[in-house]
Formats: sequence, structure tokens, C-alpha cells
Amino acid sequence: MLERADELAGFTEEPGRITRPLASPSLAKAMGRLREWMEAAGMETRSDALGNLAGRRGGPGPALMIGSHLDSVADAGRYDGILGVLVGLAVVEALDEDVPVELVAFADEEGLRFQSTFLGSRAFVGRLAPHELELRDPDSVTLGEAIGVDAPGGPREAAPRDAGPLGEPLFEGARAYFEVHIEQGPVLEAAGLPLGVVTAIAGQTRFNLTFDGHAGHAGTTPMDLRRDALGAAAEFVLAAERLANDVPGLVATVGEIGIPHGACNVIPGRVEATLDIRHQDDAVRERAIATLRHQTGQICERRGITANWSLIAEHGATPCTPELVARLAEAVAETGVEVRELPSGAGHDAVTMAGVTDIAMLFVRNAGGISHHPDESVDPEDVALAIEAATRFVTALARAEVAA
Amino acid sequence: MLERADELAGFTEEPGRITRPLASPSLAKAMGRLREWMEAAGMETRSDALGNLAGRRGGPGPALMIGSHLDSVADAGRYDGILGVLVGLAVVEALDEDVPVELVAFADEEGLRFQSTFLGSRAFVGRLAPHELELRDPDSVTLGEAIGVDAPGGPREAAPRDAGPLGEPLFEGARAYFEVHIEQGPVLEAAGLPLGVVTAIAGQTRFNLTFDGHAGHAGTTPMDLRRDALGAAAEFVLAAERLANDVPGLVATVGEIGIPHGACNVIPGRVEATLDIRHQDDAVRERAIATLRHQTGQICERRGITANWSLIAEHGATPCTPELVARLAEAVAETGVEVRELPSGAGHDAVTMAGVTDIAMLFVRNAGGISHHPDESVDPEDVALAIEAATRFVTALARAEVAA
Repeated sequence: MLERADELAGFTEEPGRITRPLASPSLAKAMGRLREWMEAAGMETRSDALGNLAGRRGGPGPALMIGSHLDSVADAGRYDGILGVLVGLAVVEALDEDVPVELVAFADEEGLRFQSTFLGSRAFVGRLAPHELELRDPDSVTLGEAIGVDAPGGPREAAPRDAGPLGEPLFEGARAYFEVHIEQGPVLEAAGLPLGVVTAIAGQTRFNLTFDGHAGHAGTTPMDLRRDALGAAAEFVLAAERLANDVPGLVATVGEIGIPHGACNVIPGRVEATLDIRHQDDAVRERAIATLRHQTGQICERRGITANWSLIAEHGATPCTPELVARLAEAVAETGVEVRELPSGAGHDAVTMAGVTDIAMLFVRNAGGISHHPDESVDPEDVALAIEAATRFVTALARAEVAA
Repeated sequence: MLERADELAGFTEEPGRITRPLASPSLAKAMGRLREWMEAAGMETRSDALGNLAGRRGGPGPALMIGSHLDSVADAGRYDGILGVLVGLAVVEALDEDVPVELVAFADEEGLRFQSTFLGSRAFVGRLAPHELELRDPDSVTLGEAIGVDAPGGPREAAPRDAGPLGEPLFEGARAYFEVHIEQGPVLEAAGLPLGVVTAIAGQTRFNLTFDGHAGHAGTTPMDLRRDALGAAAEFVLAAERLANDVPGLVATVGEIGIPHGACNVIPGRVEATLDIRHQDDAVRERAIATLRHQTGQICERRGITANWSLIAEHGATPCTPELVARLAEAVAETGVEVRELPSGAGHDAVTMAGVTDIAMLFVRNAGGISHHPDESVDPEDVALAIEAATRFVTALARAEVAA
């Protein structure tokens, strides 16, 4: 599996770095190599205009679908997305040939080229909106042009493809969708565990905030006559941190802060900041936001500051299917690994797939929690354990289907 | 006086705004108009290559010198500097003709053109360093070229001037230097008082700080595994504020803060901030800095953050001469105004003059504490009181000299 990951890392738009965006020659080559491996494993493959690739093996009836993505960010590591596809391939190779199983490799999860979200999996399940074909990349090429499809639908030309145009999705139903992914965080490493069972993909809210006070001369304005916007913003930063410390599983981050036209010798009249807040339980996240807004209101009232909250983005949590979480935990335990359940703070293709079927996710420890970076790395023993646990999970699920 | 200020406001390099830098036609015209008023008041005038203008009246012996500056910032108000010169002129006009008095208008206090400090008053007292003639304005014109003087000294040409080149300063000694200035702060307005007696020009220290923690993914890194540089910086901001609130007369300001390469969904790995801290007593300022550094060290140790302090600028306080502060307070009290003593948080020409003679300063309330802005304004009644108090101060000082 690691050798295959190394080989796929060679398909890139930038020599010396891994950069593999949607509808690029390097992604097409990576998908072509994967197709060879899938067909060698006895899978029937099919692809769509976007570049998604799916393969199926085993008897008729709903199959468990294993998948992840092969596109990358700019200057990426070699495991984000790729690991899930290649662990899936190893599982297929390890399974009995009559077990119904599908493997899917999505062509766009990172959104590098069109600054989009989950184009690959959404096209795969037929949930791409026609207007999205008008999205433009930095060279003003539309998505439709890039993949040879005219908006709002229909192929630009009758090119020899083994899949229909967008609008006839590759997805034909599944027993469930299962994704393996590097953790992209430090939890498993800190716990000394190779694997983690994902309970949910966290919901997220993003705000832009402004704090307005009164600018003034840093030398001539005594402290008691100030309305310093930064004082209020600093209290807000610490209130957000304290709240997240107090609520299990909550993360809150102020990732940007600045003083427009600020100067060393001017009392800040305005501060701009961002807030990113996530939890696997939407009700907990919403309650935390309400609490923080109330606390911030009190901070600002005490200081004569006005705070403005502007909602930038919000999406709910995607829970993994409880029955599958339990089965996956069993499979992990059978490998001799202590079961650790944890939410995913980052988004994954599983979010899209949860709209059409049950989902489960397995995390693999990655060193330092580093992802979206060339230093991304995994321990070969962890990968072996992931393949073993995934194979046990898929096998047990298939047997349960037959029994039912 | 207010009509004269309006007339001087008409001399500008930018129509519709007041912008009057060193060695500009508009400043030369303003100085020329002032010279006419001084000569009409019976003063003998003289000027130097930099453009400073001084005038003298009354008998021989050391005279009290009244002064301020006629240059401005870009898009300035009409009173910063100008008020002190024109109140001085009004005092001269109100004095008996035999009282020895000098009036000086400095040609560069704001440093707009050469990003310099007190060029005017330093040239006036002969404390300009030869290398400063090599300072360049935004058009790469040197100071020497702008004022027609070759470095390191000596006139470029034998132009008909009524003063020697730089190196023969205009300053010939004085009993003391007295400057009237708008407060440039909100203290007098908040106290409901028209005048304030300045005790000292505050000393100041400026730092650039960096806080280094560890960047990370805002979604996947639990709170207990973070080393968020912004959390430490926020505690530092509040520690600086609390310290300044606790130490009478101390002001501390974090005027700039930022996260290099920050993003909404990234835990801040580095925060950059500035600190500006001032007090009229150097020992108090130094002790406060030591305290804040200690507290910041504790904050950072607790959080696993490294703080770096880089000293940008530091200058000690300039106390006003206690005997003159007491005399000025008496003069203010005689006008029926409650005496309020306060430090100046901003620098003034008096800082330079303190190097060669005793100094005193009188502040006039300005609306909203607004300065360096077209909205700068003063109440005509406050100006009348300033002229009355200044005249009483100068007269009493002259009488005391005669008596001594």
C-alpha cells in the first residue's frame, strides 16, 4: 500500500511537489493507474465526466462502498485521501471474491482548483447543481470547460466515455459508505493509539467579528478615558478559549485578528477577528455560541464597546451511523487495539455520502497531526492494522447481510 | 488670535487641507506673515537656514522665551503648534514694552517631511548632527538640499540671509522656555477645565513583541493539545491594561496586533504585537515594564509559548521646572480657573529646550482631545484664559527677575 502511495505521489502538476487538482493530467494518470490495480483485483470499473472512478466486485445486491479522494491540495502530503482509497483496495484484495464490495476514488475533495466543497462526491451521487459548471478556476476556465461538459447538462461532444454525462450519477446505491483517513490531528498520537473510530464529522460555524471602540492617542489618553477595542477583543479571545475548555469536545479558534490602520502609538478604535467553533453535536455548538455571544455582550457593555457578529458559514454535524460505529469498534478491538472513539473536526467525502447511505469512518494516526503538507506521514504498522481492522469490518458486515 | 490661526491655515501645500512641511513655500509664507506681526509688535526678528523664526523685544538680559512650531502633519488641524506661537504673540502684545521677551516659531516639530524628531528646535539650539543633513524626504531630496546647506556645514551659496548657517544657532540663552499647546488629549475636557499646568513630558518605551506557539488545524486539534499564541497574547494585552489601570499616571497601549499567515481555520502559531508604555517618572515606567515582562513570562510558561521582546525606542521623561510649574499654577489660579496639573503624553519642542534652559508648559482644552486632524478645535473663551494666564505668568516672572 505504501509503495502504491509513493507511486501515486509521482503524478503531480508541479515537479518536486505533490499538487494534483481536479481535471488535471496528473489526476487522470493517477486514476488510470488505480483503474489498472482495481481491474487486476477483478473489479469492474466505471468513471464519470468529473473524473470520479468506481469499481465493483462480488455478487449482486447492495455492496459496502469503500472510498476517499485522489485529488490533493497544493504542495500536499501523500496520504490525505490516497490512504483511504489504497486501504480500500487492499481490503478488496484481501476479501473473498464473492463478497459484494465497491471502491470509489473521488476526483475533487480539496477544492483546490475551483475553491469548491466536495465536487467529486457530490457529482458521484448526482447532487451537483447545474450552475456549479460555471465555477471558474484562477485562469477563468469554467468547471464545465475543464471537464468537457456544457452547462446545464449534456456532453460537449460524443467522446468515447464509459460513463454518461453529469446527471447520470455513478452511484447506484450501497449498503453503506466506509472511509479510512489519516486523522489530520494529534489526538491518536497523544493517546498512543494507531486507530480511531469516528463518531461524527463535526458541525461548524464561522463568524467575522468587529469590535468598535474609540481610537485615541496612546500618550495623552489616560486609561480611565479609553474605549480600547483590543481590550474587549482580548477578553473575547479568552472567553472563547475558556468556554471550549469547559465543554467536552468543543473547539473554538480565533485564527485571525487585526487592527485596521493600527499604529504603535494609537489606541485601537476597531478590531477585526474571526471565530471558528465546532462540535459533533449541533445542539452543543449552538448553545456554546449563544453563551459566548452573551459573555461577549457583557464584556462589551462593561467597556463601552460595540461588537458585531457576521455569520460567514455554518453546517451541521454529520453523525456516523451508530450501528456501524459499534461494528467498526468491534473490528478494531479484534485487532488488539484499544478502541478510541473521536469526532472528526475536518470535513470528508463521508459528509456527502451520508446524504444517500449509512456511513462509517476509521482514522489512522499521523505523525504530529500534520496534514496538507509534504511532511504528512504514517507508520507502516498502523497502516497494516488499519487494513486488518477494515477487512474484519467489511467481512463481518457482509456476513451479517447474508444472515439477514 | 483665532483670526490669525485661520489666516495661517490658508498657507498649505494641499488645497482644501492643511499640510505644511519643513522647507516648503507654504511654511515660508506662514513664517513671513508671522514676522510681519512680530515686527508690528516692535520685535527684532531673525531666522536660520532651517526656517526657524525668532523675535525679541524689551531690555537687555535673559528674556523669557515663548514658542512652539508652525509646521504641520498632513491634513492637519489649525491649532497644534500654531496656538502656542500665536498665544505667545498675543502675550507679547499685552506686555509692557520694556519686559524682555522672546518669541520663537520652530520650522519642524512634526517631522512630516523627513520622518525626524524636533529638527526645528534642535537646529535652533545647535544640536543638529551633521549627518542629519543627509536625511532624505520621499522624493530623495536631502535635508541639506531642501534648506540650501551643504553637509557637514556652511552655506551652499552666499544668499542674503539675516542669520548664519547651521552651526551658528539662533538661540542666545534665555531665562526659561514657555510653551502653550492644545492638550491633544481628553483630560481637561473630562474634568471640565479650560487650562492645565504640565508637570512633565512623559518618558516612553516601545517594544515589538512576538509570541510563538504551535500552528494547527482549528477543527482537529482538541483544546488541551493546543499551544495557541493568541491566547498568550490576549492575556498579555489584558495584563498590560490592568497594570496601567493600577499604576497612577501610567499608560500602556497595544496598538498593533496580527497573526502572520493567519487563517480562520488555523490555530495561531505566531502573534506579533506592539507595546507603547509611558509615564512622567522614569523609575515608575521602568518598574512597570519589569513587572509586565515578569507577568508575561508567567503567562507564556503556563501556556508553552515563547515571547520575544524587541526594544524599538526609549526616551526618558522631561520634567518641567518645579519653580516654574508652581508660578504657572499661581497664574492660572489668578484667572479664576481651578488648577489641574497633568503630564504630557506627547512630545513637544519643550523637550529640546529643556536641554538648554528651564521649561514650563500650559495646556489648553481641545474638543474631544482630537489633534492631527482637521476637526481640531478650541473654545475662544479657553484661548482668552490661556492668554491671560500666560501674560500673568510672564509678567510675574519678569518682575521676580528684576526684584532678584
